[in-house]
Amino acid sequence: MGKVLIIGAGGVGTVVANKVAQNSRIFTDIMLASRTKSKCDAIAEDVKRRTGVTIRTAQVDADNVPELTALFNMFKPELVINVALPYQDLTIMDACLACGVNYLDTANYEPKDEAKFEYKWQWAYQERFREAGLTAILGCGFDPGVTSIFTAYAAKHHFDEIHYLDIVDCNAGDHGKAFATNFNPEINIREVTQKGKYWENGQWVETEPHEIHKPLTYPNIGPKESYLIYHEELESLVKNFPTLKRARFWMTFGQEYLTHLRVIQNIGMARIDEVEYNGQKIVPIQFLKAVLPDPGELGENYTGETSIGCRIRGIKDGKERTYYIYNNCSHQAAYEETGAQGVSYTTGVPATIGAMMFMQGIWKKPGVFNVEEFDPDPFMEQLNKQGLPWHELFDVDLEL
Amino acid sequence: MGKVLIIGAGGVGTVVANKVAQNSRIFTDIMLASRTKSKCDAIAEDVKRRTGVTIRTAQVDADNVPELTALFNMFKPELVINVALPYQDLTIMDACLACGVNYLDTANYEPKDEAKFEYKWQWAYQERFREAGLTAILGCGFDPGVTSIFTAYAAKHHFDEIHYLDIVDCNAGDHGKAFATNFNPEINIREVTQKGKYWENGQWVETEPHEIHKPLTYPNIGPKESYLIYHEELESLVKNFPTLKRARFWMTFGQEYLTHLRVIQNIGMARIDEVEYNGQKIVPIQFLKAVLPDPGELGENYTGETSIGCRIRGIKDGKERTYYIYNNCSHQAAYEETGAQGVSYTTGVPATIGAMMFMQGIWKKPGVFNVEEFDPDPFMEQLNKQGLPWHELFDVDLEL
Repeated sequence: MGKVLIIGAGGVGTVVANKVAQNSRIFTDIMLASRTKSKCDAIAEDVKRRTGVTIRTAQVDADNVPELTALFNMFKPELVINVALPYQDLTIMDACLACGVNYLDTANYEPKDEAKFEYKWQWAYQERFREAGLTAILGCGFDPGVTSIFTAYAAKHHFDEIHYLDIVDCNAGDHGKAFATNFNPEINIREVTQKGKYWENGQWVETEPHEIHKPLTYPNIGPKESYLIYHEELESLVKNFPTLKRARFWMTFGQEYLTHLRVIQNIGMARIDEVEYNGQKIVPIQFLKAVLPDPGELGENYTGETSIGCRIRGIKDGKERTYYIYNNCSHQAAYEETGAQGVSYTTGVPATIGAMMFMQGIWKKPGVFNVEEFDPDPFMEQLNKQGLPWHELFDVDLEL
Repeated sequence: MGKVLIIGAGGVGTVVANKVAQNSRIFTDIMLASRTKSKCDAIAEDVKRRTGVTIRTAQVDADNVPELTALFNMFKPELVINVALPYQDLTIMDACLACGVNYLDTANYEPKDEAKFEYKWQWAYQERFREAGLTAILGCGFDPGVTSIFTAYAAKHHFDEIHYLDIVDCNAGDHGKAFATNFNPEINIREVTQKGKYWENGQWVETEPHEIHKPLTYPNIGPKESYLIYHEELESLVKNFPTLKRARFWMTFGQEYLTHLRVIQNIGMARIDEVEYNGQKIVPIQFLKAVLPDPGELGENYTGETSIGCRIRGIKDGKERTYYIYNNCSHQAAYEETGAQGVSYTTGVPATIGAMMFMQGIWKKPGVFNVEEFDPDPFMEQLNKQGLPWHELFDVDLEL
């Protein structure tokens, strides 16, 4: 049915390559490209062994628009699945516009020199994508991604108005390392060390980093200390669901993880500005990334599971109700299926489903959209089929 | 009376420059050299303002023997005071031999690629210095340095045999930073993260890092948790005082300092091997040094004091006795006098006194020597005059 180009050969790219290959009736021609072609070749070889499907590979510098357009014009994909770095969203979108290619990503653009998680840069492409008749699907991983689709599904089927939304993200996995991040350390540390922020009564409320926290109970896991942090889907959700009185995001962190983060900041290794070193300019957090364990290598001995979901309170038929929808994902099952751990899996599977939605013409309209602006039902159906089954609880204590 | 060349323009170099200038009747011609001449110029300007004495400055790469010999042949010093990096001890000793210059340092040579604190490399120069008629004085800071001179003084005046030696090093200062090291972070972290080791009953006993610790009470400070670590003077002391049944070294660390060290190791930033980064080879601990606070900049708001001494048990006139000799040094007083904090001060003042001993012909004999091999009395007298007064306690509870 269609040609797809995956950009990015980290853990998420590994999962997307596997899942796209598993769905080769929809994705009939697949290419995987990244800065380091040997990484793509290794993934392609593994995918071939697991699924029998052949994936083409290519080298591309996703910071470089001419390189991207040359690749797009050569391969002529219908859709690009961008699972490279968030810094590269805009160059890839530019190349899509230049070549008439549709676009999907899993994390919003972020400028390299400030840790800002805002959609404004990508939303600014709305007119150009619409005029070009191209679809851009933003933030189609798990969070952002499935959490917004869960919210849209709840709003469509279970509520007349949703008032309170708490997205709860627990990773109860154990990778056996003293310290490692579950995805790109640079992005992870930038995200987690920023100030907290949530939406309440029509405005954003800012908190100190990790200022607000409480234990929340996760299905099949139990209580885990959870910290209010800012997460990018809050921005689009409060825009697209104006009945929301409050929207927050909670993530679990262990004490050791927080201690490591605190020290990394104290010693200056979380800095995102350039430092002079031996006549070279080096960004400390990028150098740190080079010495920390590669998140893609965490899979093999990773035990435990993730649990991510939405806890919602609102009105149905004039009565208040509560609703909790979630998915639990086992790190080991993810690794056995794709060679990547659960955090990569929960991001890569939704990206693949989003691409399926586009390829099948279900999620296809000119312009730039967040995932909650599409019909959630066909996506929700695929979650159950593609390895991320979800569960609903009605009228339970949300703890929030 | 004589020409002296100081190599190294960090905190210790700053103190040595000041103290040498204060004693300009002995040091009649002073030069300060380092890799970065601008640092030397700034120190020289400050010394001029404080003492009225003019110091010459020069640029030299202390890793480079031809550069060193060119400088030595030009300036023709009688003595080099080496307060550069421990990696550079051997190149500077080589240049001294080539040019007929006497030598003094404050820390033993350490190869760059393994964290070993052993005298073997420098002791191997014994014959060459003797044949050249040159004096090399090793380890003439506070520890190593004064601690060994305290021990020699105790052995000379207060004991017939010393049996148990515990060197106790407390820094009860507060620099107000979340984390900073008091001297070169690279050397400090290498030293503190290595395994513990002490001498007992004729052999070395190894411990895990920080495995043995207990609270010790320091004069004018109170009890502080103190950790058994290996420190280089133990090697020469057990050789030069063969009656020692046990010799140990204790250093105080705060919980926060240890947490930071543990994380720095966990995240790979204490590594001393090369890491590939953007096509360049970078040693993580050296990059870390570039982002941590400069120890030379800690002085201004540094409060509290250090307390370093020797706790000794042995035999005098057939009876067991205990003896505790120590110096306390105020960070603020050190900063006011020299512009550097107490840890730099307690290293730089003894180096200056050692240089005085040499210049006055008191500590002058061909060969390579540790400080306890010279007469301690004239050095002890100068400690009281040059800013590091010492105190003795007899027959007290040593806690050890």
